[in-house]
Amino acid sequence: MNIAEYMQKLGRQARQASRQLAAATTATKNKALLATAAELDARRDQLLQANALDMRAGAAKQLDAALLDRLELTPARIDAMIEGLEQVASLPDPVGAITDMNYRPSGIQLGKMRVPLGVVGIIYESRPNVTVDAASLCLKSGNAAILRGGSEAINSNQAIASCLASGLELAGLPAEAVQVVETTDREAVGELIKLSEYVDVLVPRGGKGLIERISEGARIPVIKHLDGVCHVYLDQEADKDKALAIAINAKTHRYGTCNTMETLLVHESQAASLLPLLAEAYIEKGVELRGCSRSRLLAPAMQAAIDSDWTTEYLAPILAVKIVDSLDDAIEHINRYGSHHTDAIVTENFTRARRFLNEVDSSSVMVNASTRFADGFEYGLGAEIGISTDKIHARGPVGLEGLTSQKYVVLGNGHIRE
Amino acid sequence: MNIAEYMQKLGRQARQASRQLAAATTATKNKALLATAAELDARRDQLLQANALDMRAGAAKQLDAALLDRLELTPARIDAMIEGLEQVASLPDPVGAITDMNYRPSGIQLGKMRVPLGVVGIIYESRPNVTVDAASLCLKSGNAAILRGGSEAINSNQAIASCLASGLELAGLPAEAVQVVETTDREAVGELIKLSEYVDVLVPRGGKGLIERISEGARIPVIKHLDGVCHVYLDQEADKDKALAIAINAKTHRYGTCNTMETLLVHESQAASLLPLLAEAYIEKGVELRGCSRSRLLAPAMQAAIDSDWTTEYLAPILAVKIVDSLDDAIEHINRYGSHHTDAIVTENFTRARRFLNEVDSSSVMVNASTRFADGFEYGLGAEIGISTDKIHARGPVGLEGLTSQKYVVLGNGHIRE
Repeated sequence: MNIAEYMQKLGRQARQASRQLAAATTATKNKALLATAAELDARRDQLLQANALDMRAGAAKQLDAALLDRLELTPARIDAMIEGLEQVASLPDPVGAITDMNYRPSGIQLGKMRVPLGVVGIIYESRPNVTVDAASLCLKSGNAAILRGGSEAINSNQAIASCLASGLELAGLPAEAVQVVETTDREAVGELIKLSEYVDVLVPRGGKGLIERISEGARIPVIKHLDGVCHVYLDQEADKDKALAIAINAKTHRYGTCNTMETLLVHESQAASLLPLLAEAYIEKGVELRGCSRSRLLAPAMQAAIDSDWTTEYLAPILAVKIVDSLDDAIEHINRYGSHHTDAIVTENFTRARRFLNEVDSSSVMVNASTRFADGFEYGLGAEIGISTDKIHARGPVGLEGLTSQKYVVLGNGHIRE
Repeated sequence: MNIAEYMQKLGRQARQASRQLAAATTATKNKALLATAAELDARRDQLLQANALDMRAGAAKQLDAALLDRLELTPARIDAMIEGLEQVASLPDPVGAITDMNYRPSGIQLGKMRVPLGVVGIIYESRPNVTVDAASLCLKSGNAAILRGGSEAINSNQAIASCLASGLELAGLPAEAVQVVETTDREAVGELIKLSEYVDVLVPRGGKGLIERISEGARIPVIKHLDGVCHVYLDQEADKDKALAIAINAKTHRYGTCNTMETLLVHESQAASLLPLLAEAYIEKGVELRGCSRSRLLAPAMQAAIDSDWTTEYLAPILAVKIVDSLDDAIEHINRYGSHHTDAIVTENFTRARRFLNEVDSSSVMVNASTRFADGFEYGLGAEIGISTDKIHARGPVGLEGLTSQKYVVLGNGHIRE
């Protein structure tokens, strides 16, 4: 069987399994999740052995330290995977929820029912824990999943896949409800993104390059997250303590996350009082500052920002800083240079707060809160399959609900159109 | 300026205008809609003259009668366009609605705000009234629109575009909020569907071939409707009167609509009592019947159905008929051969009704009601931009809400991540 035929087979099997999964009860799905957790717990040694193979191959291929770190399974990371499954089992089941059942003038009663999307294809890097996270969210939301992890994690992913298969079977669900692609051939990705007959949505997770390539070639809708160029804007009526706390937290709480602030905007009337203090605090934490010319007059330790700084997601202890003359300028800057991910204003002014919320075109807009809050756990979605910077279907952190859709339900008593 | 440059220019202008439109108040948008209606009313002669040019050119090109009929503007059709604008003005504005503002354990308050998608590209056939319908829905939902109608309607569409531009300007909105493509060159469509920087969603309207071509080539999400292969299933506990009324209405109320029944499924225990009566009624109305072998024993006037009949959207007085042995067989047939548009069961049995609603994977599922109810007006959405058979973003009739998305809103009081 060649790669194209193999992927067609996975697709067919996923579609078939998706029908059973869509009709599965909440209890059955939870049983599969908890049985998988028990399997992971029971097979810790196997998981660690499989992962050791991947780690040795990775070291031989001289993968960089960050990649090896993401690839590694440890007892603590297995614990986290097990906890993740238990958490997803404890989340409310979105499937089947019926809302808005109202009578229409014709006499029919019309509402909406939440249903799974069908089959979800997930393409991700060499992080074995994503295999469990993604599979559990798909399963709970009633979707079959085809998982294509990075080739460096193939042994770890196969070991996890085997736990998932056992968990599904113990619950009476088809093992094909979660399929981990068994080949590391890159052609498998090329085939997966064209399986429009069998796959309803693709979720690529990883670097921007990967996501762009997949979006370009896909023949299936993609839920994607490209960049996190997030902003905090300190308004002329920003409370000083809130401004300092949020500006520091949004940048320094974690550097490598997509909801970390990458550009700080400061109203010119606040710059003289806030920027020197902030610059000192950032430099103390080892953050490199790149400022506009006006900022640099107030904080000479800054390097000069160049145009590309306004559009760069550093994912590192680097921050771009710009002084703006008005809320309009701040909104204009964010909508033009940002990535429509998460942006915050710090202000005590009601009207400007409201304008910021209305006019900033991002998946999360915030007043007096750190951009770091923009994730699935903080938003109460449980785990997240990704954070969408698209506008279609799902925006922002995508959890169980983002993996579902709504169909119309019509109840009548022999009603016909006149 | 070549076509590619011209389309780029429209895209840039639309993106620019979309920001103003997104921030426009409900009153301003309604003013633009009503001012456009007044312009259409004031310029009836111009509209009819422009349309006469199109009709003459169409006749010279020997367009078929159905196409010429759709192309024609009459005083009554201008009235209908004016009424359509007034109706859309009277619909509630979806933009800015904030829902689910709840406190999270961290202390932030989290909710969702409904926002426009941005720029909508609509590609449609030579029906001038679609220009007004589509423009009005986009405008009310705060989206800029780029409209590419069929080349045969170019003069009519330009005349309508000029009314729209006046209406927008009278309300203080940029005329570029609604742009009608001025060239009939087919390359314009090819360029439009790749303007991913400027266009957020495409809505193709027309024949299946057109929609498939656009979906294939698009680099932008598409809200589409391919087929309407709708079913009515008469269960073993179908009430006889309801069964007859719904089966007749779903097929014969209108033949050319996508929510018309194309296949009738009958439980074997009901076939002997219902099929002869139904066959007589259909034949009286001039409906050609194509049945499975068992159906033909009961209604000999039926032709023999072949495999392709189960997947055909006739859009004509033709009906496929099949006897099935169980609800499972009916659901299996619908999910396999149908187009996931609209399907109905007629039954008095509670449990089978519930199973049908849950397990039929279509954008509208109905109990004891005619499939003909599946449209935007009957569902109370006002007009509709289309009926989506996709699962992503919007399913079923797509009105104002389908042209919007939701962003997250976070309110804090200096909240930071610990």
